Amino acid sequence: MVKRIAVLTSGGDAPGMNAAIRAVVRKGIHHGFEVFGVQRGYEGVIQGDFKLMNFHSVGGIIQHGGTVLKTARSEAFKTAEGFDAALEQLKNHYIDYLVVIGGDGSMAGAIKLADAGIPTMVIPGTIDNDMPGTEYTVGFDTALNTVLEAVNKIRDTAASHERVAIVEVMGRSAGHIALMAGLACGAEAILLPEEPLDMDIICERLAKSHQRGKLYSIILVAEGVAKGYDIASQISARTDFQPHVTVLGYIQRGGNPTATDNIMASRMGAAAIDHILQDNVNQLIAWQKGQIVTLPYEEALKTKHGIDLSIYDLASILAR
Amino acid sequence: MVKRIAVLTSGGDAPGMNAAIRAVVRKGIHHGFEVFGVQRGYEGVIQGDFKLMNFHSVGGIIQHGGTVLKTARSEAFKTAEGFDAALEQLKNHYIDYLVVIGGDGSMAGAIKLADAGIPTMVIPGTIDNDMPGTEYTVGFDTALNTVLEAVNKIRDTAASHERVAIVEVMGRSAGHIALMAGLACGAEAILLPEEPLDMDIICERLAKSHQRGKLYSIILVAEGVAKGYDIASQISARTDFQPHVTVLGYIQRGGNPTATDNIMASRMGAAAIDHILQDNVNQLIAWQKGQIVTLPYEEALKTKHGIDLSIYDLASILAR
Amino acid sequence: MVKRIAVLTSGGDAPGMNAAIRAVVRKGIHHGFEVFGVQRGYEGVIQGDFKLMNFHSVGGIIQHGGTVLKTARSEAFKTAEGFDAALEQLKNHYIDYLVVIGGDGSMAGAIKLADAGIPTMVIPGTIDNDMPGTEYTVGFDTALNTVLEAVNKIRDTAASHERVAIVEVMGRSAGHIALMAGLACGAEAILLPEEPLDMDIICERLAKSHQRGKLYSIILVAEGVAKGYDIASQISARTDFQPHVTVLGYIQRGGNPTATDNIMASRMGAAAIDHILQDNVNQLIAWQKGQIVTLPYEEALKTKHGIDLSIYDLASILAR
Amino acid sequence: MVKRIAVLTSGGDAPGMNAAIRAVVRKGIHHGFEVFGVQRGYEGVIQGDFKLMNFHSVGGIIQHGGTVLKTARSEAFKTAEGFDAALEQLKNHYIDYLVVIGGDGSMAGAIKLADAGIPTMVIPGTIDNDMPGTEYTVGFDTALNTVLEAVNKIRDTAASHERVAIVEVMGRSAGHIALMAGLACGAEAILLPEEPLDMDIICERLAKSHQRGKLYSIILVAEGVAKGYDIASQISARTDFQPHVTVLGYIQRGGNPTATDNIMASRMGAAAIDHILQDNVNQLIAWQKGQIVTLPYEEALKTKHGIDLSIYDLASILAR
Repeated sequence: MVKRIAVLTSGGDAPGMNAAIRAVVRKGIHHGFEVFGVQRGYEGVIQGDFKLMNFHSVGGIIQHGGTVLKTARSEAFKTAEGFDAALEQLKNHYIDYLVVIGGDGSMAGAIKLADAGIPTMVIPGTIDNDMPGTEYTVGFDTALNTVLEAVNKIRDTAASHERVAIVEVMGRSAGHIALMAGLACGAEAILLPEEPLDMDIICERLAKSHQRGKLYSIILVAEGVAKGYDIASQISARTDFQPHVTVLGYIQRGGNPTATDNIMASRMGAAAIDHILQDNVNQLIAWQKGQIVTLPYEEALKTKHGIDLSIYDLASILAR
Repeated sequence: MVKRIAVLTSGGDAPGMNAAIRAVVRKGIHHGFEVFGVQRGYEGVIQGDFKLMNFHSVGGIIQHGGTVLKTARSEAFKTAEGFDAALEQLKNHYIDYLVVIGGDGSMAGAIKLADAGIPTMVIPGTIDNDMPGTEYTVGFDTALNTVLEAVNKIRDTAASHERVAIVEVMGRSAGHIALMAGLACGAEAILLPEEPLDMDIICERLAKSHQRGKLYSIILVAEGVAKGYDIASQISARTDFQPHVTVLGYIQRGGNPTATDNIMASRMGAAAIDHILQDNVNQLIAWQKGQIVTLPYEEALKTKHGIDLSIYDLASILAR
Repeated sequence: MVKRIAVLTSGGDAPGMNAAIRAVVRKGIHHGFEVFGVQRGYEGVIQGDFKLMNFHSVGGIIQHGGTVLKTARSEAFKTAEGFDAALEQLKNHYIDYLVVIGGDGSMAGAIKLADAGIPTMVIPGTIDNDMPGTEYTVGFDTALNTVLEAVNKIRDTAASHERVAIVEVMGRSAGHIALMAGLACGAEAILLPEEPLDMDIICERLAKSHQRGKLYSIILVAEGVAKGYDIASQISARTDFQPHVTVLGYIQRGGNPTATDNIMASRMGAAAIDHILQDNVNQLIAWQKGQIVTLPYEEALKTKHGIDLSIYDLASILAR
Repeated sequence: MVKRIAVLTSGGDAPGMNAAIRAVVRKGIHHGFEVFGVQRGYEGVIQGDFKLMNFHSVGGIIQHGGTVLKTARSEAFKTAEGFDAALEQLKNHYIDYLVVIGGDGSMAGAIKLADAGIPTMVIPGTIDNDMPGTEYTVGFDTALNTVLEAVNKIRDTAASHERVAIVEVMGRSAGHIALMAGLACGAEAILLPEEPLDMDIICERLAKSHQRGKLYSIILVAEGVAKGYDIASQISARTDFQPHVTVLGYIQRGGNPTATDNIMASRMGAAAIDHILQDNVNQLIAWQKGQIVTLPYEEALKTKHGIDLSIYDLASILAR
């Protein structure tokens, strides 16, 4: 009998999710599976919203941000009733494997289902790059480039007005976006949840680079460490600078995926099918040391993917 | 004796200002003038910061946002002492004509100088497109496209999560950016300073389009009418929608200029020189009915450039 | 009885066509018409491929290049049999008005149908901006910006290698794209079908700007005047420069539409409906002097929309 | 006595080279070196064109494509006289270390100098990603994204006209760009120098996907395997398709660097200084298994960085 795979996207959307869906669907069909798309993440599982996919279902989607399967954060799935309903729907639809594309909240759901006997696979998809076990999550590269392009625009104005510009970027608990975008754009200061915030040092540094003739500065702030507006108030209270603030918000989540995101998503989606074929299930598809590997969930959860402090130091040496 | 032209940018920077500077410098030199660049707007005039420009001075700048002459809002220039100092500097440097690139605040300065006997010309440059006397100001087209690109990214996320997205754009007193970007991106609602704000109508409309099956909506808000966050609160208080908010801020001011902005800036900069040659001075270079014309300042000030309400109506018919 | 409008896109696709379709459909429905979309231009008319559209049919399309109605150049429609078949289909489907979005070839078809008794309207849509009677055609602005962005990239390499870069752009019979993009990007030379080509002058100019210290040059060539590769051969035969060549080709036809194209397309599409309502048919919707007007076809055909030679002169003064 | 480092860019320019220069200069100065920039690659060495750099020399460059040090392919350096002149200049200027940013031709020069007693370091910089010893070369990611964006535009037109579009990309001896961009954009076929070209299979595949209802196709061709125009001729001779062709050319070499290129360039530039500090010289800075490592030149030359055929197979499974 033909085996059935269901695929869903869950949590915050991320560019490249469509490429991952496409890879799961097409590679799955290529190997003889029936592949079903679930709308709105775990919510759709609960509601039994399974749709049989074919090659065409995922045509013309790879170049678009967002997710054609839609996504949601399901409150119902966290309740016992919701979870049981989800389980029952998966069984009633004879789903053999569930592929979940999302962040750590989504992985928690996949683990719970695995524990209840549904074989699952997780493809890391979130712009924040903050999942345990993997050095890369689909969507991160597009978000970085969106921040970089925005900072390039903001730099025009900061340079023309000789001002300090503060740019608040996403990152509640982890500063990956702020750190890597900060290195990429040459930000004068980067404020991360992982590093103690010392306004004295920042203000002193602004003053020094101003003395050295630097006419404007860019400060990147991860939302998790402070509000951009608060940093601006502190700087204008302590120095002569009147920083202006931009909160990038949701533009960081959308946009056409970059090459890297589509490549990673395609390869990870395909890897999920390859490992299902080998019955290597209940695994996180992870990126480690330049390769796609799989990690059993419990092992993945043990490995925090923190920021690389040597990069933080490098950024501050280079940005004076 | 060779006549001298000074050129400055003032007020908020706008993409295309560099093309205008380049046109003033190169066309000026072409016609035998000496052209001086003034740094930091009227502040630079007061400080006597005049730099002789040549063809090379403006090479490799046309493709960049911001202004190579830098810009500032000068408080000193508004005082009697500052103004007098500016006048004296212009005379001491034998400046025959001053070309000012900027918005209405900058034009006010040019008028004051003209009244004091310095022949001036104004090239309209501000992203807001809100200057009297002209249908177009350099920088507007780039700002529109920046908003459009941002909304395209935000739409990915709004569609994937089936949410209402509120995007706050620039426009304190005039809604040109919100209106034209709203038409261009197909926003479901556009909130303008020029139109009374009726939250009932907006909420009803969101509800209706949702009933008709529209799964997400984009609302553009000009900063002059309300804060995006306030609109979001009102909508979530009155409906089931939980809008998310993006404040585009300074990214609207920067970026590589579009073709239209560079074309308009180049033509307007050249026109300033042409009219100086004909001694048609103390004029606003204006765009009217598809042509570049000049308007004496007093006439320019009489003609408010308001929004076109028929476009507002069209946007609301098309966006249902 | 409800009146029926059919809408089609024909000839080369152009960004903004989707916004025009959306405007015709939604404004048409708003005023009580039934609106039918025809696939593949006149080919679809011949085949009777009429599809009733509703508000949703044109949702989520405004941000995309190309045309959701698809387009084709129909050989059959040029034959007597094909034309008769088209007429019959329009009558059998009780089509009262046909709105054609396209270039001058498409307008020729609309005129022929009008002469045979089918009321038609034409919305100018082609990236080349070369239609008689109108100063603007939908798609032109996006194409200009695509060329500008490409030249910005090519400039990086030309400047780093201190070379002459030749960029061949679209424009068989008219040089609008080359001229306006050339002004916008600051090209050192612009070769147009409308201007006699003097390689001596071009080579002399390259030599002179090189002597003056200009380390690289950009030459824009409209495909109608010469092949970029031929110009390169001539330059390397006569000078020490070894130009490199880029043929932009079809990337000029695609891409997300700019704000201007979506605004013009939306307004022109709506105008087509407004004039149908007033029974002002068999008209070209045209852009003249900053306004949307209508022109009877015979009048439109009389007015050639040539390039503005004063802009050509300006570009060459500014680009030295 | 203060040690001196010279840095140059050589061969074809690549986006990210400026970030690498900036990192070498600023990290070098940070550790107490004097850093000299050499103009025009090895040509500048021969001419003794060494310029002392400071923190400001590399300000405001990280966001731009190309290289502020300019680049060239030096014929003189390949002669004995030229090489000796270069050596003498390096000695006369008391250069202790030379950092070369470029591709394999540039590395050959660095090896020759190392053999003659000048300690050198190589940072891999070329869009082609075809250097031995390293999995990544600075510039590759930007080039991939440029191709991806171009294909996204071309797809609009191909889809609207239901045609086959052929896109010729860079890659004389290696198909990295074609392969990875092909996977990222979902190309229907990818033609690589590394894979035997079978037009029968390609034509059959086009026919099959057309039968399955696929209305358009994108074919990516690396310039090293065939001219795009020749492939088009062969397809139109054997099938009913009339493909259109775009040759991307030099736009692939320019453009603002992506986040990845600026991050890699910054880290590799800094690593070059770190290893000089440890006297670990005559090394290629290489990317392997997700980490920056160094390889002695002879070892680097042994390791060919070929394409990953499993990715080629994946692309063809996914693109049907």
